[in-house]
Amino acid sequence: MTPKEILRILEGVRKQVLSPDQAAEKLRHLPHRDLGFARVDTHRQLRCGFPEVIFCQGKTTAQIRDIARVLLSHNGNLLATRADRKAWLAIRKLDRRAEWHERARCITVRQEVMEPRPGEILVVTAGTGDIPVAEEALVTASIMGHKVEGLYDVGIAGIHRILRETERLAKASVVIVCAGMEGALPGVVAALIRRPVIAVPTSIGYGASFGGVAPLLTMLNSCAAGIGVVNIDNGFGAGYLASLIAQGASGAT
Amino acid sequence: MTPKEILRILEGVRKQVLSPDQAAEKLRHLPHRDLGFARVDTHRQLRCGFPEVIFCQGKTTAQIRDIARVLLSHNGNLLATRADRKAWLAIRKLDRRAEWHERARCITVRQEVMEPRPGEILVVTAGTGDIPVAEEALVTASIMGHKVEGLYDVGIAGIHRILRETERLAKASVVIVCAGMEGALPGVVAALIRRPVIAVPTSIGYGASFGGVAPLLTMLNSCAAGIGVVNIDNGFGAGYLASLIAQGASGAT
Amino acid sequence: MTPKEILRILEGVRKQVLSPDQAAEKLRHLPHRDLGFARVDTHRQLRCGFPEVIFCQGKTTAQIRDIARVLLSHNGNLLATRADRKAWLAIRKLDRRAEWHERARCITVRQEVMEPRPGEILVVTAGTGDIPVAEEALVTASIMGHKVEGLYDVGIAGIHRILRETERLAKASVVIVCAGMEGALPGVVAALIRRPVIAVPTSIGYGASFGGVAPLLTMLNSCAAGIGVVNIDNGFGAGYLASLIAQGASGAT
Amino acid sequence: MTPKEILRILEGVRKQVLSPDQAAEKLRHLPHRDLGFARVDTHRQLRCGFPEVIFCQGKTTAQIRDIARVLLSHNGNLLATRADRKAWLAIRKLDRRAEWHERARCITVRQEVMEPRPGEILVVTAGTGDIPVAEEALVTASIMGHKVEGLYDVGIAGIHRILRETERLAKASVVIVCAGMEGALPGVVAALIRRPVIAVPTSIGYGASFGGVAPLLTMLNSCAAGIGVVNIDNGFGAGYLASLIAQGASGAT
Amino acid sequence: MTPKEILRILEGVRKQVLSPDQAAEKLRHLPHRDLGFARVDTHRQLRCGFPEVIFCQGKTTAQIRDIARVLLSHNGNLLATRADRKAWLAIRKLDRRAEWHERARCITVRQEVMEPRPGEILVVTAGTGDIPVAEEALVTASIMGHKVEGLYDVGIAGIHRILRETERLAKASVVIVCAGMEGALPGVVAALIRRPVIAVPTSIGYGASFGGVAPLLTMLNSCAAGIGVVNIDNGFGAGYLASLIAQGASGAT
Amino acid sequence: MTPKEILRILEGVRKQVLSPDQAAEKLRHLPHRDLGFARVDTHRQLRCGFPEVIFCQGKTTAQIRDIARVLLSHNGNLLATRADRKAWLAIRKLDRRAEWHERARCITVRQEVMEPRPGEILVVTAGTGDIPVAEEALVTASIMGHKVEGLYDVGIAGIHRILRETERLAKASVVIVCAGMEGALPGVVAALIRRPVIAVPTSIGYGASFGGVAPLLTMLNSCAAGIGVVNIDNGFGAGYLASLIAQGASGAT
Amino acid sequence: MTPKEILRILEGVRKQVLSPDQAAEKLRHLPHRDLGFARVDTHRQLRCGFPEVIFCQGKTTAQIRDIARVLLSHNGNLLATRADRKAWLAIRKLDRRAEWHERARCITVRQEVMEPRPGEILVVTAGTGDIPVAEEALVTASIMGHKVEGLYDVGIAGIHRILRETERLAKASVVIVCAGMEGALPGVVAALIRRPVIAVPTSIGYGASFGGVAPLLTMLNSCAAGIGVVNIDNGFGAGYLASLIAQGASGAT
Amino acid sequence: MTPKEILRILEGVRKQVLSPDQAAEKLRHLPHRDLGFARVDTHRQLRCGFPEVIFCQGKTTAQIRDIARVLLSHNGNLLATRADRKAWLAIRKLDRRAEWHERARCITVRQEVMEPRPGEILVVTAGTGDIPVAEEALVTASIMGHKVEGLYDVGIAGIHRILRETERLAKASVVIVCAGMEGALPGVVAALIRRPVIAVPTSIGYGASFGGVAPLLTMLNSCAAGIGVVNIDNGFGAGYLASLIAQGASGAT
Repeated sequence: MTPKEILRILEGVRKQVLSPDQAAEKLRHLPHRDLGFARVDTHRQLRCGFPEVIFCQGKTTAQIRDIARVLLSHNGNLLATRADRKAWLAIRKLDRRAEWHERARCITVRQEVMEPRPGEILVVTAGTGDIPVAEEALVTASIMGHKVEGLYDVGIAGIHRILRETERLAKASVVIVCAGMEGALPGVVAALIRRPVIAVPTSIGYGASFGGVAPLLTMLNSCAAGIGVVNIDNGFGAGYLASLIAQGASGAT
Repeated sequence: MTPKEILRILEGVRKQVLSPDQAAEKLRHLPHRDLGFARVDTHRQLRCGFPEVIFCQGKTTAQIRDIARVLLSHNGNLLATRADRKAWLAIRKLDRRAEWHERARCITVRQEVMEPRPGEILVVTAGTGDIPVAEEALVTASIMGHKVEGLYDVGIAGIHRILRETERLAKASVVIVCAGMEGALPGVVAALIRRPVIAVPTSIGYGASFGGVAPLLTMLNSCAAGIGVVNIDNGFGAGYLASLIAQGASGAT
Repeated sequence: MTPKEILRILEGVRKQVLSPDQAAEKLRHLPHRDLGFARVDTHRQLRCGFPEVIFCQGKTTAQIRDIARVLLSHNGNLLATRADRKAWLAIRKLDRRAEWHERARCITVRQEVMEPRPGEILVVTAGTGDIPVAEEALVTASIMGHKVEGLYDVGIAGIHRILRETERLAKASVVIVCAGMEGALPGVVAALIRRPVIAVPTSIGYGASFGGVAPLLTMLNSCAAGIGVVNIDNGFGAGYLASLIAQGASGAT
Repeated sequence: MTPKEILRILEGVRKQVLSPDQAAEKLRHLPHRDLGFARVDTHRQLRCGFPEVIFCQGKTTAQIRDIARVLLSHNGNLLATRADRKAWLAIRKLDRRAEWHERARCITVRQEVMEPRPGEILVVTAGTGDIPVAEEALVTASIMGHKVEGLYDVGIAGIHRILRETERLAKASVVIVCAGMEGALPGVVAALIRRPVIAVPTSIGYGASFGGVAPLLTMLNSCAAGIGVVNIDNGFGAGYLASLIAQGASGAT
Repeated sequence: MTPKEILRILEGVRKQVLSPDQAAEKLRHLPHRDLGFARVDTHRQLRCGFPEVIFCQGKTTAQIRDIARVLLSHNGNLLATRADRKAWLAIRKLDRRAEWHERARCITVRQEVMEPRPGEILVVTAGTGDIPVAEEALVTASIMGHKVEGLYDVGIAGIHRILRETERLAKASVVIVCAGMEGALPGVVAALIRRPVIAVPTSIGYGASFGGVAPLLTMLNSCAAGIGVVNIDNGFGAGYLASLIAQGASGAT
Repeated sequence: MTPKEILRILEGVRKQVLSPDQAAEKLRHLPHRDLGFARVDTHRQLRCGFPEVIFCQGKTTAQIRDIARVLLSHNGNLLATRADRKAWLAIRKLDRRAEWHERARCITVRQEVMEPRPGEILVVTAGTGDIPVAEEALVTASIMGHKVEGLYDVGIAGIHRILRETERLAKASVVIVCAGMEGALPGVVAALIRRPVIAVPTSIGYGASFGGVAPLLTMLNSCAAGIGVVNIDNGFGAGYLASLIAQGASGAT
Repeated sequence: MTPKEILRILEGVRKQVLSPDQAAEKLRHLPHRDLGFARVDTHRQLRCGFPEVIFCQGKTTAQIRDIARVLLSHNGNLLATRADRKAWLAIRKLDRRAEWHERARCITVRQEVMEPRPGEILVVTAGTGDIPVAEEALVTASIMGHKVEGLYDVGIAGIHRILRETERLAKASVVIVCAGMEGALPGVVAALIRRPVIAVPTSIGYGASFGGVAPLLTMLNSCAAGIGVVNIDNGFGAGYLASLIAQGASGAT
Repeated sequence: MTPKEILRILEGVRKQVLSPDQAAEKLRHLPHRDLGFARVDTHRQLRCGFPEVIFCQGKTTAQIRDIARVLLSHNGNLLATRADRKAWLAIRKLDRRAEWHERARCITVRQEVMEPRPGEILVVTAGTGDIPVAEEALVTASIMGHKVEGLYDVGIAGIHRILRETERLAKASVVIVCAGMEGALPGVVAALIRRPVIAVPTSIGYGASFGGVAPLLTMLNSCAAGIGVVNIDNGFGAGYLASLIAQGASGAT
């Protein structure tokens, strides 16, 4: 509901094309569909540049399907995260193009053909165990229209692995770094380049990693600047933020 | 020490302009000045796009001054954070242009005349008490060459204050949001725009805010996507990250 | 055992209707039934306005059934929370009117026909995943005699969803707001209305939500006033408190 | 900015008393005064029933004074919490009626003569050390127009002290209970009466009380229902919530 | 290895009944049996008044059986805690008298006929869910020779339940109080009597009880004195400590 | 207010020595003196065996003095903990016998001549820094009538120091062990003797001792049984509990 | 990639045996094999003295097998930790010598015949439940070429068990001590000997042991010096560190 | 009190040079001096290789002086940590050779001329603020007879600073790494060399570093093996452990 729309409605009232009641009704018109258990935010693409994403955890398969149906009816691309196979099967009944990204636990439906957005997003992991989180980021940024690449298992226990990739890191528009255990890799990467780094702590580890708290604290306390941190295991959030940053980099509005 | 430099040195060896020992020496040549208590990273501008910044907390005034002298001798701009008045007086003896930003607790010296970088950075606070952190972000992004503006005391206790600024928020390249207590403002802002939001939890609050832990957790758990979080009270980190994002947005390399 | 009752017993002694021993016995008479494993508080309706509620977690089905039998024999309404289907089947054998509220995991038996208590209680959720907690609150306030309505999935990621409901919020006697993840919704609601808000953090979320700690802290630190917080996932406590508040609002004693 | 106001503005447009631009301007008209460092929410009384309250912690005396000046110019009552003597002296220069509540660390200015609101609020403390928090609640509810009484030092180490006050507790519309250390008193009070209890954990204690965390957890986990919890030491929040509850109880709108 | 034994060995050396090497051997003689995976402390009865107790958690059934065999061969009573049915079946093969206490998850074998130790131990619970922990305490103190009674479900949500038992509480030598959720009962009990109270926090509860941390903190911060706290769910430790206290009370050595 | 007293009052009513109103008055008669800011529990000696103790932290000197005056007027012994010199000077004006225990930060007034209670209490510290806490325990148990001795700086870094004192430990009725840092001493002591051990974690230490949390956890998790734990730095609570245990040991009622 | 290698490559360039491009290529030559999901660090033996170890947790069996194949092709010894039986079966297909250490959850393949390294490593546990962690340490140090022995169940609840082993402790080059619950044993051991002690907290325990946090804090706060702590349950890390220490002790380079 | 001494005493008894009572007395002879507030462990040098070290925090200057006097009378070297200038002045009165290490807050007295122990200890810091902790380690290892060097401010924000020192790191017998903030440096160092690394988290940082918790967790979770961690800011413990390791490396016993 942008200021322009408000002005247009007011203009309609002045021209007596709309009665005040009709105008009030329009202003009241909800930019979401109410399913009882969910109010699907159908205007989010206008407002934020991408349709509402379905966070499947804590929802029944039927709820996921019903939300997906509303979103698909608006012709945007669809992304569902933290999904299981059953959710995918349900969505595939709605649209045969539904893809299942098993490692990332994501479902995507591409309805809209987008011209590739400029700028490359690089998704880096410290270890092999961090890959599912990285893939969630990768799928997210891909469905949002970006070229994304993965660079996996380059943690600091073999520091030369990441140092040798400095040029590749430097060429990306934005770098996502996923790391569990001690979580030191984002700081090392940020110190090597002049691009924004998105740090994703993962719950990989044991004992005093406390389910990802240790790498989260490491990343927040990094002495290298240029790092924004997201929630533990939040690959989606990292991919989404990377997309917003890269869109800016490519002059998109 | 970029790959191009390595290649150039190797070329020098092949052309016998450099002996292998000289080349090894050059490769060994440290891109920092060793002051005993500090190794000043004089190549950081090349590597990361901005000179090393002096984090004054835990350093003596003499140490701060000595590090500043090395940095100033490389003709870049200087930024010192978490500084006190005494540090400023010491640096002003080295360079009369040294400025003291009291609320932000920062010292800056502008040696380099930069053409303004495109894109605007907006620094938002939830309350009045968050302003010092916001000013640290503002000073940081300014010395890095950006146009920065402040938008203060628009927290969610009066939600219309921020809603009325939606257009202004939407026009920024990147928005920094500083909030203490419950820390909900960054999530509200991110849900209104399609630009990256940098969230800075502040230690403003009492009791169960635990010195900024409460807003930190709020920001990490935001259900709105597009948010990168920095450490509690880390205005500098937010300003720095915003600069990197905005530089990308303006096509800078 | 109110002061009036004490005076009446003393009066009986003076009039020699009661011997001192009988009086002592009466004073000793326990307002609870001892089942060995449980002392069912049969006077709680007199004292607190509603019979004891069965918290099923940690109790065997046989224990739940035995407690229910005692409570039902006092003709009040029965509420059992955190129940499973087996507990319901056991209670239904005692009284065919036993209802099973699956999403809320509650069992109710309405023995007493109550005239509806004035005032409406509104139960709001930030997301779909918060609904089971909301339903526990809804069932609780309903069995206590209130008109209760639900307003679901109006979290701050689409802030206009809640803003458009401001009038409806304002008409309620008391508003319960259930939210997980960042838990910012209760603060937004409280800032919009002049009614008490009961905030219920839920364990919906992952990573740094720490099983509901993040929204709990958010709600405790809310910069909007007028909020009382209950335990994580404690829909029952919210419904009960809402009832007490609404009873006051309707002049009940 | 209520729906009625919107309708009235739209009506003005239809009647051509207002041009669309004027109407847009009106809709844009900010219900707050911008002081640069603060946006004083001058419509909060309309929206929430009481003017904005000045939370002095983290503000300079000059900032407090400037905010107070704006608020006083709207003729409402003024409340400033977590204030020191200097803030009081500054506000007294604006209005000679400014009162200083030392124990509660509050400043009040009564500009508006209110008819006393019905219903009594009782503020209870477990110990002597909890009294400053209780007084903050008491001053808050008083300036909001209520009859408030204190009942101090009736903690459970001498359980008969509170039991003997059961009738007095039962007569209040709402009871605020402030307790540090183990924080068990609110649960005991809630189990005795059928009125809402607002529990305020205080930072009184040492060692494993962790600055009020122990009583906070106790209150959140209370097995007696009917309790809403506020932040540690948040007497203001308790007084404010009590006022909203008591207003409902008295039929106020 | 008491001082008397040392003196006796030394006397043997002087009288040349023992060679120095034999004496050294005796001094080296281990008061435990080494099973490779366990060193069974067979002198603990002499030292501490009760044989080593088998903590079954983390041990295989075979390990439990082998340790039990060694202990039984010393003719003391046997107690195994946190045991499952399989462990009981294995021990019953060693000694048919082995008893299985299912609720308490304990196994006992009474080999030694003890004259009952004076003094009564009372085990109190706040709720029904705390009973398994209470039973572990009860079984422990029983096998150690005490008269123990249970008093269950007298938590503070119905405060009169415990107040009516004041005399019974006062007659015990020591009172064990098990409570989860808010854990306030031990403080109330301690304030009523002049006997030591052993407080056992239990993991009964949810949300902000954090698996027993909430009642643990409550108990540690109790404003009533005379309370010693044991680990969460540590019924055994409470029963053992109660026995030591009661033994002292009965003049035992 | 024991059952016997109730019966006696009832008997008075039956014999018409008391009117019902007088009896009700008597039952209402408060066993505490209300000072406004404090309700001094003057019956605690009857109920718990020792008068109310003044916890000075958070009280003004005037409040401490007023409470002391009430307590002294009942002729019992007086103990004030966490006191400063000013409190002592104020109490000394009330009674010249007031003693100041500087290291323990305690004030005592002995009004009552007690025959020494049998049984010895031993107070042990791991280090020199733990002595102030130990002295608080020592002063407390002394004023309660016990023979108390100190055994200081016998921590496990020189394990033979405590082993050589085994006999002395074994002769005590109860042993209090104060330890900071790692807090392992109580477990070692409990494993050597058959007497109850009261463990007092102290805040001595730095870094990961977290103000006493580390020794607190150590003590709660001790694999040696027979230990009751009190709050961090709670010497008073330890001394009080030790007295209750020793009184039982000596057959006192 | 040692300095000598760099010099040799440069020498090759000078002698025109290598073109600058070839040299650059060589410098770029990665000392790891890229499997897509893993970059196997094949130079770690050169750099750190032992090949990369496979941490199996979070890896699929196929990933483990593929990494093992690369490592085995370099003829070093292989160690895989936190492995299950399926991983062992997969590796045994690659090399029949693969051994399965069930208690330690480790797989080893000895390809290299090492002369035994001097110095003995002693692995001590406080209880029986700590043995799996101890075995992980033992297997690790063994495959690294050391003589290792275990000394189990000598915790401080029977302090003489460890005291009697003082000589054996003193003869080891380095002692690893694994302890859960209170975790006091490493401090006792360190106080008895002049050798480095590696402390391993284990997750054995319940309640306030918080999955190993309690012994971790105990070990970090030990008042005996000479202790290095590793992560909870990190037997591998302890065995590895012990090997590095013992190698130094034996003069290895 | 070694086994040999026991045997010698027993031999004396057999030869009737010692009576059993004399022998018992000798066995009882305390290897410490009792000052009342402290039991100075005068045999620690025999047992652990270095005399008792005075931890000054929490001790009065008089106590420090008295302990120092006992230790100096045994002719060993003296080390006092966490000392202030006043403690130094007091010790200098006992021995003019007392040295004051201001940055390290240590006092040393060298009474014993030691031949330098072989092996070099390298003390590394990530930043300038970590130097005081590093100096405590350096002073400790020096007084224990080692050659120690410092290498400061080589944190990962300029990763080439530490990479260029790889050879120097590799030549040390053991490397101590002190780091605050994110604490990632020890992991990077351990991955570069085959020597033991001792990691010291420091309290340098702010916000989510939680006084050193963040680097502590980082170090415990390091994916590079070969690291032992000590308490936050525990430079002494690191220096002591390094000495024990280096002594082993040099074949000392």
